[in-house]
Amino acid sequence: MAEVYSDIDFAKLDISRSERTGMPETIYCAGKNKHQLLKILQTFAEHKVAVLGTRCSQEQFEFVSSAGLDVVYDEMSKILRLNGQAMTSLYGSIAVCTGGTADIPVAEEAALTAEFCGAEVKRFYDVGIAGLHRLLHKVEDIRMADVIIAVAGMEGALPSVLAGLVKAPVIAVPTSVGYGASFGGLAPLLTMINSCAAGVSVVNIDNGFGAAVQACRILNLKGKNND
Amino acid sequence: MAEVYSDIDFAKLDISRSERTGMPETIYCAGKNKHQLLKILQTFAEHKVAVLGTRCSQEQFEFVSSAGLDVVYDEMSKILRLNGQAMTSLYGSIAVCTGGTADIPVAEEAALTAEFCGAEVKRFYDVGIAGLHRLLHKVEDIRMADVIIAVAGMEGALPSVLAGLVKAPVIAVPTSVGYGASFGGLAPLLTMINSCAAGVSVVNIDNGFGAAVQACRILNLKGKNND
Amino acid sequence: MAEVYSDIDFAKLDISRSERTGMPETIYCAGKNKHQLLKILQTFAEHKVAVLGTRCSQEQFEFVSSAGLDVVYDEMSKILRLNGQAMTSLYGSIAVCTGGTADIPVAEEAALTAEFCGAEVKRFYDVGIAGLHRLLHKVEDIRMADVIIAVAGMEGALPSVLAGLVKAPVIAVPTSVGYGASFGGLAPLLTMINSCAAGVSVVNIDNGFGAAVQACRILNLKGKNND
Amino acid sequence: MAEVYSDIDFAKLDISRSERTGMPETIYCAGKNKHQLLKILQTFAEHKVAVLGTRCSQEQFEFVSSAGLDVVYDEMSKILRLNGQAMTSLYGSIAVCTGGTADIPVAEEAALTAEFCGAEVKRFYDVGIAGLHRLLHKVEDIRMADVIIAVAGMEGALPSVLAGLVKAPVIAVPTSVGYGASFGGLAPLLTMINSCAAGVSVVNIDNGFGAAVQACRILNLKGKNND
Amino acid sequence: MAEVYSDIDFAKLDISRSERTGMPETIYCAGKNKHQLLKILQTFAEHKVAVLGTRCSQEQFEFVSSAGLDVVYDEMSKILRLNGQAMTSLYGSIAVCTGGTADIPVAEEAALTAEFCGAEVKRFYDVGIAGLHRLLHKVEDIRMADVIIAVAGMEGALPSVLAGLVKAPVIAVPTSVGYGASFGGLAPLLTMINSCAAGVSVVNIDNGFGAAVQACRILNLKGKNND
Amino acid sequence: MAEVYSDIDFAKLDISRSERTGMPETIYCAGKNKHQLLKILQTFAEHKVAVLGTRCSQEQFEFVSSAGLDVVYDEMSKILRLNGQAMTSLYGSIAVCTGGTADIPVAEEAALTAEFCGAEVKRFYDVGIAGLHRLLHKVEDIRMADVIIAVAGMEGALPSVLAGLVKAPVIAVPTSVGYGASFGGLAPLLTMINSCAAGVSVVNIDNGFGAAVQACRILNLKGKNND
Amino acid sequence: MAEVYSDIDFAKLDISRSERTGMPETIYCAGKNKHQLLKILQTFAEHKVAVLGTRCSQEQFEFVSSAGLDVVYDEMSKILRLNGQAMTSLYGSIAVCTGGTADIPVAEEAALTAEFCGAEVKRFYDVGIAGLHRLLHKVEDIRMADVIIAVAGMEGALPSVLAGLVKAPVIAVPTSVGYGASFGGLAPLLTMINSCAAGVSVVNIDNGFGAAVQACRILNLKGKNND
Amino acid sequence: MAEVYSDIDFAKLDISRSERTGMPETIYCAGKNKHQLLKILQTFAEHKVAVLGTRCSQEQFEFVSSAGLDVVYDEMSKILRLNGQAMTSLYGSIAVCTGGTADIPVAEEAALTAEFCGAEVKRFYDVGIAGLHRLLHKVEDIRMADVIIAVAGMEGALPSVLAGLVKAPVIAVPTSVGYGASFGGLAPLLTMINSCAAGVSVVNIDNGFGAAVQACRILNLKGKNND
Repeated sequence: MAEVYSDIDFAKLDISRSERTGMPETIYCAGKNKHQLLKILQTFAEHKVAVLGTRCSQEQFEFVSSAGLDVVYDEMSKILRLNGQAMTSLYGSIAVCTGGTADIPVAEEAALTAEFCGAEVKRFYDVGIAGLHRLLHKVEDIRMADVIIAVAGMEGALPSVLAGLVKAPVIAVPTSVGYGASFGGLAPLLTMINSCAAGVSVVNIDNGFGAAVQACRILNLKGKNND
Repeated sequence: MAEVYSDIDFAKLDISRSERTGMPETIYCAGKNKHQLLKILQTFAEHKVAVLGTRCSQEQFEFVSSAGLDVVYDEMSKILRLNGQAMTSLYGSIAVCTGGTADIPVAEEAALTAEFCGAEVKRFYDVGIAGLHRLLHKVEDIRMADVIIAVAGMEGALPSVLAGLVKAPVIAVPTSVGYGASFGGLAPLLTMINSCAAGVSVVNIDNGFGAAVQACRILNLKGKNND
Repeated sequence: MAEVYSDIDFAKLDISRSERTGMPETIYCAGKNKHQLLKILQTFAEHKVAVLGTRCSQEQFEFVSSAGLDVVYDEMSKILRLNGQAMTSLYGSIAVCTGGTADIPVAEEAALTAEFCGAEVKRFYDVGIAGLHRLLHKVEDIRMADVIIAVAGMEGALPSVLAGLVKAPVIAVPTSVGYGASFGGLAPLLTMINSCAAGVSVVNIDNGFGAAVQACRILNLKGKNND
Repeated sequence: MAEVYSDIDFAKLDISRSERTGMPETIYCAGKNKHQLLKILQTFAEHKVAVLGTRCSQEQFEFVSSAGLDVVYDEMSKILRLNGQAMTSLYGSIAVCTGGTADIPVAEEAALTAEFCGAEVKRFYDVGIAGLHRLLHKVEDIRMADVIIAVAGMEGALPSVLAGLVKAPVIAVPTSVGYGASFGGLAPLLTMINSCAAGVSVVNIDNGFGAAVQACRILNLKGKNND
Repeated sequence: MAEVYSDIDFAKLDISRSERTGMPETIYCAGKNKHQLLKILQTFAEHKVAVLGTRCSQEQFEFVSSAGLDVVYDEMSKILRLNGQAMTSLYGSIAVCTGGTADIPVAEEAALTAEFCGAEVKRFYDVGIAGLHRLLHKVEDIRMADVIIAVAGMEGALPSVLAGLVKAPVIAVPTSVGYGASFGGLAPLLTMINSCAAGVSVVNIDNGFGAAVQACRILNLKGKNND
Repeated sequence: MAEVYSDIDFAKLDISRSERTGMPETIYCAGKNKHQLLKILQTFAEHKVAVLGTRCSQEQFEFVSSAGLDVVYDEMSKILRLNGQAMTSLYGSIAVCTGGTADIPVAEEAALTAEFCGAEVKRFYDVGIAGLHRLLHKVEDIRMADVIIAVAGMEGALPSVLAGLVKAPVIAVPTSVGYGASFGGLAPLLTMINSCAAGVSVVNIDNGFGAAVQACRILNLKGKNND
Repeated sequence: MAEVYSDIDFAKLDISRSERTGMPETIYCAGKNKHQLLKILQTFAEHKVAVLGTRCSQEQFEFVSSAGLDVVYDEMSKILRLNGQAMTSLYGSIAVCTGGTADIPVAEEAALTAEFCGAEVKRFYDVGIAGLHRLLHKVEDIRMADVIIAVAGMEGALPSVLAGLVKAPVIAVPTSVGYGASFGGLAPLLTMINSCAAGVSVVNIDNGFGAAVQACRILNLKGKNND
Repeated sequence: MAEVYSDIDFAKLDISRSERTGMPETIYCAGKNKHQLLKILQTFAEHKVAVLGTRCSQEQFEFVSSAGLDVVYDEMSKILRLNGQAMTSLYGSIAVCTGGTADIPVAEEAALTAEFCGAEVKRFYDVGIAGLHRLLHKVEDIRMADVIIAVAGMEGALPSVLAGLVKAPVIAVPTSVGYGASFGGLAPLLTMINSCAAGVSVVNIDNGFGAAVQACRILNLKGKNND
């Protein structure tokens, strides 16, 4: 009974997603056991497709690496990359900002994903609102970006403040950084959803990946002809 | 004691917001009493600035209208307009989609706001996922838009399905349409925040206005030079 | 059976509270029927004690007023006053700030309560973070206050921003202003409780009265000898 | 004091449940210590009754296995079987579908339970709505089933989409797969309960077992005479 | 601006849903304004299709009735019927049970919907668990049904108790009947989702309609050949 | 269709409940329409049984009163009584305490119910913990009661404080009195459930009736022989 | 800095609580470090007072045991006893019932506490409502108890069913047994608080200790003279 | 890819915060990896600035200590200190009170922070409301403090009781001490926010640090001239 799904078609690899949605191949590694993950990666490896894996544990990385796949791994963001950078490139740049240093792993998930998709990324870390001068000091640089990803935990007010200062769309990422009444990121999620400043839209708690994909979809517009 | 704030500077009119954020002037009418609202509108009227008011009650509209201001009002979306359309114009188009007919007031808040900001809007109403063929029938048309606003209540799955079918960024708007375990829109909000399809970012429940502003910030990119 | 409690001692008037806690007499009018309220006020009237009533409905005011009591009423804040201002006076001043105009009724509950207790109050309304320049423009004036009451709904980030800009203690008041995922003020409450800036403590949603009492307890310190 | 319950009748074995409810014997292993579990299984072993255990830990399995019981174990679904397959058989078939690969353990709990009860099971894994073509490609096969079990985490929209495409009843199983605002499966639970497509009913988060029992109760109808 | 959607195709009438899902046409009236509702009903009236409307307000009924449509209305369940009973018929019967008398409106929504779909319905009202003898007195009659719909508010334990007493599938409907910690039906919803008795699946709070559709999908199986 | 349930046996009158549970007949009036309520009361009137109705609206009272039934009504507690006091009597006394005056309606529901059941009731109203001396002043009298019902809203700390001061069991009743983060009584409910003082057990928000029934069940013990 | 509180009076031993509240001495061990616990126990040991410790970890037990204190420990309920049984004795008996076997640790916390306080305890385990005949089979025995403690997880309906079958007061204990939408015991807590059967009052999740103390306070009444 | 941020300016050290907000330098250690923490501390060490670190793990302490920094560490409160005590000093004193012994770690975080900031601290531990005499015994001493920090878990009623007994402002700190329906401190947080006694304001769950900073901001007033 132990091998119930060994010969089943357990994962429908979505080979045309890239073409359909304009994004490179990506895999959400969490929740997949290491054998499943290896099998999926091997399939892509055979097709020589560049793939980005998110939420990849150290243990998963070591298992697939020891199987001989061409992978690199970033411990902080838990990002895995197979077959190098994707071949796409995008016009314009993304500013990735964080409220504090504890938000950096989520921000790096966003930044590395965006770079994998071909975007230029500029990092502005630890510019939270408790020390507003740090943010105001950087605001001219942030204004030069075409899209802004604002990553914050605790009370999560950074995206609202940013949206009042710039013209670019702000993608807000609440993080589970914090304790007590943060309730695992619920507090900054509600803060961001209730933003009094228009120009903010929100992705899931700790979802740096999702923010980056949304930012890249937006950057796609920059290269388009005006019709 | 009755007139405690009559001569105070109760509302800081943000006359430069338009320039700073690239969006026309807008007012959130709910929570303002009719005298406050009139005073604010009169100030803008003197400056001959076009203004959009959201969540304007029938009673507020009638009060400011009877004071002789040049306003038009849409009952369904509760949108008020002073001094006509804003002078901005944007490249590209926005598709506003709804899951059902009960979501239309929120969708119209989005559509009229976007039109006020100078965007071209295409409406795709009642294309919810319970009858997938209705959505699939329209998907080619929806794909032609540069940004998609997806408005849905109840289980709120429309944005996820759309994001898997198109390349454009999807701005998701949960609505309070529904009953029981919808909990005033909490259910579709959570659905959209947890979207398994990347390319979705979310605004507040019933916040058609915020979705439109975000969409217009995105459209701004289309007219920019590639640098 | 209709008059079951007519002759019972239904409310224990706390005549010594003023002396014990240093605050004037106050009554929370909501939840009391108009006969109870009248009886309580009459008892204080006989003792010639100045009393502040909060959350007093228009109907309650009219009932006690028509009974001949010496009362004044502020419709916006729903504050009722019996026998004029309290005889206390406090050193120092309180800045009452709001994020938006819709937060003013709660702010006025705070301001009128603090004035009743003998404090000097300065109002800074509509200085929310979506237009940061409005706040920065006033920050020097706000810094001159000894205690700050920051009233905000929606995402409720004003107290955090203020606490990073000033040295005075900030009393944060979340309001039920907003809609959707505000959940009746839960969102700004969580924001304020999770403030990344130390120097913020929080009272109940819409509790302008409680913020004022806390601010006045703090001001009490200013007049004390250093021991 | 250590053996307070050693000689008490701690578990009322419900020997007639099978007859009363038409389902084979099953045991929920979680929360039972290994000695309790062994004693219960031994009692059934003496009566030569086939039993299915759910949520059985690896450690529990090894303990009862080393005591000489005739058990088999599936690590992925945590299903334990004593004395082989139950002697029941049902008409018709059940389609077990999942949104992603991480939902498979819950789906296998459902599938193995249904097979134990005598049903024919067809598996359709990784057919989530983010890649709708994968689902549409399989929909004809899914339509041939008499009952559908739809297992999904994250936003959990699979059951709604399925219910709009087929005539069979859909039993929805939310999973705790996901992170952040999934809140341990609350998000897909609410999604499924709010389904805009009728023909969906829901069991507890991760409750593959319960879905299978409900599906088998439904299949029971197929073999009945029309009266 | 007032008639923004007057000439748009605001509702995609799903004329083939009946064939695709095996259920008659139904309309969720809540959230539709009376003009929309009338227009939809007139379209169906022209096609001489029998339609069931749920959550129809007295005011909506009177409006469409005065427009000359052939409608009947049940005030308690808020069910509207156009063009008589649907032409379908189903084998077998449904037992609709309630915990208390206050649950009857939801139960009638279920019962009338099921009858519209061609099912035979038996009503067992006020058989809640606080007086277990009332339920046990009826249990033999309830056992004769092919599917059971159990409607209960407050603690909502009726479905669990029933599922332990019968072999048929139990569709549980939590109601918003109750007060305090019922939280609008959240309490019985959680009770039912956590049922310790397998054989229970749950629909939305107060969703008698959804329960009936699910029950009818199940009854469909009874008429099918065994393959 | 309008009279679908007119001739059904919609309410199973539980004539033997009194004997089985030792409590007089009671009816929860909320959620019953006035015709149902009248019919139920008439049945009891024919059997000359004393009945207590809770949550009876003014409108319900007037309807059944105008039908000629022998009823008395207390507007504050919304208690209706048919055929006078019940014939039971209990040994011992119950202290009903409230935190504030706004909690009195719930307290009266408890007190009148307990008196109907034959208990002696002593009222201690407005003894909340904000003015501890009021409570300490009464504590000797409260200690003389056999059971204590403690009714409180807002933070709901009264039962904990009482349980540390007396030996009698404390039945805690949270009320929906309060605003903001009271969330309709959730706050005092959680306070009471988390009581650090043992000897407190809790009933539903605003459920004075349930507290009284529990208190009377406890008083029943006092009259029993010691075995 | 490491010993900041070494010489402070960190715990106020409440030596007169026993006299004041009629209950023996008890200690909540969780959250105390092992040195604190030892010091507290040693103080009681010197006074030769019998003490009950709840939520005592295996590690805490071994630490205080190895220090030479006269303690016994029950691993299942995590109950520790110092200096033997308390010298109290109570009239009457308590029935401790559980829904399932996984609820037994909480039930044993209740049973051992009640026995420590001098009550007679009868155990009825695994009599949950999914197999109602098991409960009905025992109901005559349960009816002989003076107080009933009903312990249940998952949907937690046992107390309601019991309260409809007996005259004694029912103390309900929700447990964290369960998974998914149990939310750590929130589901059975809400079920029990919403009980449609009067005669149920509720203590905290997993709080067997609190239920026992309340039951013993109630039993105290049995020995009192009727006044 | 492993060193993506090695040369970035990951933390904006806020060297002027001390001057701007009047508080010494502090670091929130949780969420920073040990290399980040070391680097930050070394920077401050070079500037010979006294720094307080909160939520510092034993492992973090050992890492930075072994790198040769001049640090001391308190295991209970997880407070780290670099370069000794800050050079500030404040007039007046702070009373730090706890409900139980399990709240002491949070209280010590408050007390050590306040002492670092130059305040005099008096500790009143284990004075919770379940044994009111313990609190009343100390109340005269507590009244002598200028500010009160009240730390409590479980039902968290201590701040309300204190605020009714003293004139000083009460800063309330809910703790995550407790279990079951405490929901990680949500219960005492709601209790404190809903305090019926004015003069209470609240910080985050377990946030002893934040309470101390707020108390010190308040003490700052005592030294100011009256203007």
